[in-house]
Amino acid sequence: MSERRVALVTTANFYVGPDTARILARRGHDLVVGDADPELITELESYGATVVNVEGGSKARNEEDYARLLAAGVERFGQVHAATMFSGRVVTGKFVDSTLDDLDTVYQGCVVQPYHFLKAVVPHMVANKDGQILILTSAAGSRPVFGAPLYSSLRAAGTMLARNVAEEVVRSNVQVNILGTNFMDFPEFLRATGGNDPEVRKMIEQQVPMRRLGGVEECAYSCASFLDGTSRFLTGQWISYSGGWS
Amino acid sequence: MSERRVALVTTANFYVGPDTARILARRGHDLVVGDADPELITELESYGATVVNVEGGSKARNEEDYARLLAAGVERFGQVHAATMFSGRVVTGKFVDSTLDDLDTVYQGCVVQPYHFLKAVVPHMVANKDGQILILTSAAGSRPVFGAPLYSSLRAAGTMLARNVAEEVVRSNVQVNILGTNFMDFPEFLRATGGNDPEVRKMIEQQVPMRRLGGVEECAYSCASFLDGTSRFLTGQWISYSGGWS
Repeated sequence: MSERRVALVTTANFYVGPDTARILARRGHDLVVGDADPELITELESYGATVVNVEGGSKARNEEDYARLLAAGVERFGQVHAATMFSGRVVTGKFVDSTLDDLDTVYQGCVVQPYHFLKAVVPHMVANKDGQILILTSAAGSRPVFGAPLYSSLRAAGTMLARNVAEEVVRSNVQVNILGTNFMDFPEFLRATGGNDPEVRKMIEQQVPMRRLGGVEECAYSCASFLDGTSRFLTGQWISYSGGWS
Repeated sequence: MSERRVALVTTANFYVGPDTARILARRGHDLVVGDADPELITELESYGATVVNVEGGSKARNEEDYARLLAAGVERFGQVHAATMFSGRVVTGKFVDSTLDDLDTVYQGCVVQPYHFLKAVVPHMVANKDGQILILTSAAGSRPVFGAPLYSSLRAAGTMLARNVAEEVVRSNVQVNILGTNFMDFPEFLRATGGNDPEVRKMIEQQVPMRRLGGVEECAYSCASFLDGTSRFLTGQWISYSGGWS
């Protein structure tokens, strides 16, 4: 058994993953990461972390994929103390124009994927009576969103799934919390919304009470506070990280 | 103007105050504190913090009291970037046995006191277009509590007051968040509940899904994540810090 804490960051090539890994490394964690690039691995190691990189890990969708990530950590370190994942699939458009296929696509990305992740990591943590899980969902799950009704609905399901799991494992010293983002300044959001056009970006920022988009690094700091082991007496909590939008 | 961040911790002799001050000092903040004892001040200074201690500051109840704390920081450092306060007054007993005086007592402690604090600190932060506020309330405000109906009700009001202020100042780069505790391991909770008796403490712990009381230091880590300037794209958020109770 390692005496250091070990964190699993499934997606180390995308979104808040790289910065979450950096912060946890600086806070004394060893890491299991999915698809970190060589520069990031070098940087994480410079903070004193031992890093296990799993090729293809960021593409995990099924329980077996997540189990492979977990197993890489268990094999190297004996235990994984914290784990975080990002999931989600957007289909936009009006409800009346949507198809059952659209619904199922969103369901797969927003509910089934975190279901598989939780299935893979929860039993290990329950067996150790030690674990912190942070699921990244979307603030869209906390209020209806014009133009993304299926997404908003199934994000709500993903959030509530995590809260239910939190309640189920509360006696085992495993915490499950959820952070839901919206209006984040990263390539996929900009691409999906047309925000790479400065004029469009301005219009999007007008929808955000803070009148700006959210930073990936600042978000990672909030994520890390649920993962770094410093504070364990909270579970099933949901935070909206959306510039005051919800 | 100081180039370092400055945090106001109104109550540095009590509850999460000392540990919040320690964590913020270690994260590069100068501090304005109410009633820190000399050992704590020495410790904070050892982390590189300049510390302004305000005698009687922890007894602040009115806007003028809080304004005095803020002014001590502004005078020494030019600006206060973050501020946190604890308030609250419990009256227990059944609703049918309560008096209007009981209601007013709880109202003063759970609503009027944070009202005064927010009145004192918000304009300074809005004027600077820079501020982070964390109000500590109680998880009792998030669900009805048998035996403390007035307290539960007015805690809900205090939480919602802070959320409303968050919305009002969202455009000014001032964030207001709320952390509500319950079942914390500290002298006042133990005294109020009889938890100093080991048998009673066991019964209390049975009410907590995590089957333990919360630590003051771990709570302070969660508090610091809303105050230390690393993560600003969230406001009006409420977290229950209660071992899974809410």
